[in-house]
Amino acid sequence: MLTLSHDIAANVVNKRQNNSFKGNYGHVLIIGGNENLGGAVIMNAQAAVYSGAGLVTVATDLANKSAIHARLPEVMVMDYRKDLSAAIKKADVILIGSGLGQELTILKETLQAVQAKQTLIIDGSAITMMAEQHLPLPNAKVVLTPHQMEWQRFGEVVIADQSREDANWEALINLNPEPILVLKSSATQVYLKDDMYQLSVGGPYQATGGMGDTLAGMIAGFTAQFSPVSHAVLAAVYTHSAIAEELSKTAYVTLPSKIAEAIPAYMQRLAMETVSKAPVDTKQEE
Amino acid sequence: MLTLSHDIAANVVNKRQNNSFKGNYGHVLIIGGNENLGGAVIMNAQAAVYSGAGLVTVATDLANKSAIHARLPEVMVMDYRKDLSAAIKKADVILIGSGLGQELTILKETLQAVQAKQTLIIDGSAITMMAEQHLPLPNAKVVLTPHQMEWQRFGEVVIADQSREDANWEALINLNPEPILVLKSSATQVYLKDDMYQLSVGGPYQATGGMGDTLAGMIAGFTAQFSPVSHAVLAAVYTHSAIAEELSKTAYVTLPSKIAEAIPAYMQRLAMETVSKAPVDTKQEE
Amino acid sequence: MLTLSHDIAANVVNKRQNNSFKGNYGHVLIIGGNENLGGAVIMNAQAAVYSGAGLVTVATDLANKSAIHARLPEVMVMDYRKDLSAAIKKADVILIGSGLGQELTILKETLQAVQAKQTLIIDGSAITMMAEQHLPLPNAKVVLTPHQMEWQRFGEVVIADQSREDANWEALINLNPEPILVLKSSATQVYLKDDMYQLSVGGPYQATGGMGDTLAGMIAGFTAQFSPVSHAVLAAVYTHSAIAEELSKTAYVTLPSKIAEAIPAYMQRLAMETVSKAPVDTKQEE
Amino acid sequence: MLTLSHDIAANVVNKRQNNSFKGNYGHVLIIGGNENLGGAVIMNAQAAVYSGAGLVTVATDLANKSAIHARLPEVMVMDYRKDLSAAIKKADVILIGSGLGQELTILKETLQAVQAKQTLIIDGSAITMMAEQHLPLPNAKVVLTPHQMEWQRFGEVVIADQSREDANWEALINLNPEPILVLKSSATQVYLKDDMYQLSVGGPYQATGGMGDTLAGMIAGFTAQFSPVSHAVLAAVYTHSAIAEELSKTAYVTLPSKIAEAIPAYMQRLAMETVSKAPVDTKQEE
Repeated sequence: MLTLSHDIAANVVNKRQNNSFKGNYGHVLIIGGNENLGGAVIMNAQAAVYSGAGLVTVATDLANKSAIHARLPEVMVMDYRKDLSAAIKKADVILIGSGLGQELTILKETLQAVQAKQTLIIDGSAITMMAEQHLPLPNAKVVLTPHQMEWQRFGEVVIADQSREDANWEALINLNPEPILVLKSSATQVYLKDDMYQLSVGGPYQATGGMGDTLAGMIAGFTAQFSPVSHAVLAAVYTHSAIAEELSKTAYVTLPSKIAEAIPAYMQRLAMETVSKAPVDTKQEE
Repeated sequence: MLTLSHDIAANVVNKRQNNSFKGNYGHVLIIGGNENLGGAVIMNAQAAVYSGAGLVTVATDLANKSAIHARLPEVMVMDYRKDLSAAIKKADVILIGSGLGQELTILKETLQAVQAKQTLIIDGSAITMMAEQHLPLPNAKVVLTPHQMEWQRFGEVVIADQSREDANWEALINLNPEPILVLKSSATQVYLKDDMYQLSVGGPYQATGGMGDTLAGMIAGFTAQFSPVSHAVLAAVYTHSAIAEELSKTAYVTLPSKIAEAIPAYMQRLAMETVSKAPVDTKQEE
Repeated sequence: MLTLSHDIAANVVNKRQNNSFKGNYGHVLIIGGNENLGGAVIMNAQAAVYSGAGLVTVATDLANKSAIHARLPEVMVMDYRKDLSAAIKKADVILIGSGLGQELTILKETLQAVQAKQTLIIDGSAITMMAEQHLPLPNAKVVLTPHQMEWQRFGEVVIADQSREDANWEALINLNPEPILVLKSSATQVYLKDDMYQLSVGGPYQATGGMGDTLAGMIAGFTAQFSPVSHAVLAAVYTHSAIAEELSKTAYVTLPSKIAEAIPAYMQRLAMETVSKAPVDTKQEE
Repeated sequence: MLTLSHDIAANVVNKRQNNSFKGNYGHVLIIGGNENLGGAVIMNAQAAVYSGAGLVTVATDLANKSAIHARLPEVMVMDYRKDLSAAIKKADVILIGSGLGQELTILKETLQAVQAKQTLIIDGSAITMMAEQHLPLPNAKVVLTPHQMEWQRFGEVVIADQSREDANWEALINLNPEPILVLKSSATQVYLKDDMYQLSVGGPYQATGGMGDTLAGMIAGFTAQFSPVSHAVLAAVYTHSAIAEELSKTAYVTLPSKIAEAIPAYMQRLAMETVSKAPVDTKQEE
């Protein structure tokens, strides 16, 4: 077990290179938000945009369009029932599942269209549907972000056993490709390659609806900009809860939308932290 | 008569336990907002979310969805004409009535579906409809939040008599189950069990539309998190007006949405106030 | 000619009485906002709400509802094509015309329904339509808020002559009932009874779209709360530009929505200014 | 090559004249935002309004109306499929192309309706469609705001050659009328008359979606207020990136909507900078 510490995030979030443009910071496609659950993709998208993703598109039920643009003019919106596969092909990072409800057709189309070079983050009800339907993981760089009940369904590790690192590893090695697992709880853990990272910040002020949607959006935004994917995921998970911990000094509950608002300032502090840090190649192949 | 004082709120709003998750802080279902009065449920919901409720769902006329999500991505929205009873079953706290207009069918379905273990807050036009239709209170932990005219209709205590504590008690003991009464006026009173609590903070800067909707939302948010219900109600009523009083130093009118914005900071100060306060079990059975 | 000075506003905006409730601060009905021009009633309504009106209802094309509630949950929204006369009867102050376009039927219904005891503020295209259709002023406390071109149309005073106080008086004495005239320009003037008040604050940073909509909303909010109407109008006109002048220290253009945001703080300073000021009866009959 | 410096912006952005009104600051018509890409015109419009344009109208797919008004009550909205030519005639500055998608009919109608005395800013997909369809520039004061790929399509200068000033001039002198070219990249250049201005501020924190939409909106807002057009364009380009640079001290990514928010304060500092600067005639003929 390793500690998911500040240094990991600080090493990932570096000053951007001078001659870069938005294409260097990735195109995130967020797929989710059924007719009732559009708030989830708003939180995804705000987190991705405020993290600095180059471009963010939200594929959703169009009933959500007005609210998305009222909060986030920076994102593009499309109907997730129209030309979804084509949109997936153009993305670098795909996040599916927040507020997706029971939209199985959307999920299946996504799993089919995604490509090996792409990062696919699977969240929320997409995880549950995959478990229920026994859908295999696609050939891509997969990041799973279940909470404990979703992991019980998908990984078939009962919640009581999830505190045992080996039980989780056992479930993971049976998966192909082996995903990065962000197992959300009051003590969130990240499983990647051979290591488990235990999150060391955050707290119960984060126990409120939408917290995971903001986290998933940050993971999308970070993996769009930083490589390798594994480091980007770790940095996103750390930064999300570190911001919450900071806000909690003056907030009984740290709302997801308030965490998202605070991302640019926190990342800038991470980037400036060590004057000796040199700008790194963004998006270099892993 | 007791004074509804700062200490009561400070004793209720305690630091959250470390190993808690959103399920520990309750699921609030807000039912209201007809085609024209959607603003009321936005104020309900913002207050519930910013108070720290674990999950908040708004069951409303779907014409209100875009505006709700544009302000509050943290909430889920559903059509109050579809599967309302099922949604009620999943909630811990139900708030009905703000901006509900004359939607009697919605009210009746709610009164039938609610269960004894649940907290039911009845506000606004739901109170008037219950009076007009002679609908009995359901078997649940009921909190009534009428303003004076609504209490005259429902409790059959004319406004002139409402300043007499005994007149209000007389009306209350005839009700079954006996509800907690939050009687809103320029000198709001809370009647519960055998005591009447007189609110000691707040003022005429609160005399503006929507003030009661924010209060009802806070009562929902507090009862979802803290127990017993009676203490949670007292703490919510106090905190609502204490925030207004603070804002009034720099605001001629303290708008409901500004009060809601200020909830997390005020609650955090309440939680930190007495270093000797120990974390308490949240949601323990009463 | 009198100077519209700070003291006039400070004498009007007094601390509210302790035992007051929202009914004491008036019900404002805003009628305007056709299919394309809904922004105008949002600015009206924000100004009225932030000024402290007890209740604010917006009667508009329902296409504007989502945007109104997304910005202002405190207001009620209704279709201005349905039951408008009944809504007018319940209001204390009616503001018609901002963004109304060519909706002549709405205007005529309003002029017919308004009652002698009510304050009617006529703004924007309502003024132009009244001039074009030769509609007489209704029997009410009328406030006209034309810009120069609208006054040329309605009062038949060409713009070149509008700098001559007597020319404007001549037009006013022919009107029955004699309205209060707020003649908007880079040097706004208020004509009431026998006096003309010259605005002494404000500047060219206010020269931007929507400025008049915010002013009209403040006049509605102030007349709903303070009496007599004449003093309330003067105080609103002064406060609107005084806030703009203050904001202009750090803003090249002082946007209407930013002026509205600043109203509660400015009014509170006016109310606190002279410790010797006693609370006055609000809404006393004139 | 000249440096696009602070002094150029400071000389353009002067204190407004006292006796001016909104008509002096121009009417901007923004044409763009198809069904999916309404965020682009929100960013256009916010930038134009916050820059101080006298009036701003957005002609767009009406599906975008709610979100526009929820963010910007100051703008008027119209259906870009209805009476567009008439609206163009009433404008001083027309900006077309942000989020326009493949709406060729709208583009053609605009190119036909625009008049010689008007400023026409061509952005985004309007540039691509003009290249693909070989549409000639109309007789107007044209400003082109392509990014590198768009300039390759329209100017037929491959990206590799765009660093050569003479290659860009060669393309420009073949155009009739010769437009002002704002060639956006990590080192944005402005070509006008006989000079190329190299932007000296800004950085990679601007590399995010929507950045160009905000710039186009600022150019519209500045050309509506300041003359000659050439100076207004230079000042807008400088101010846009200077604000970003300032925000970047506390923001890893400087979002377009945050830049827009900061415009009024930055412009006010420019206006106040040199006390010796006299108010200049705005909108004097060039």
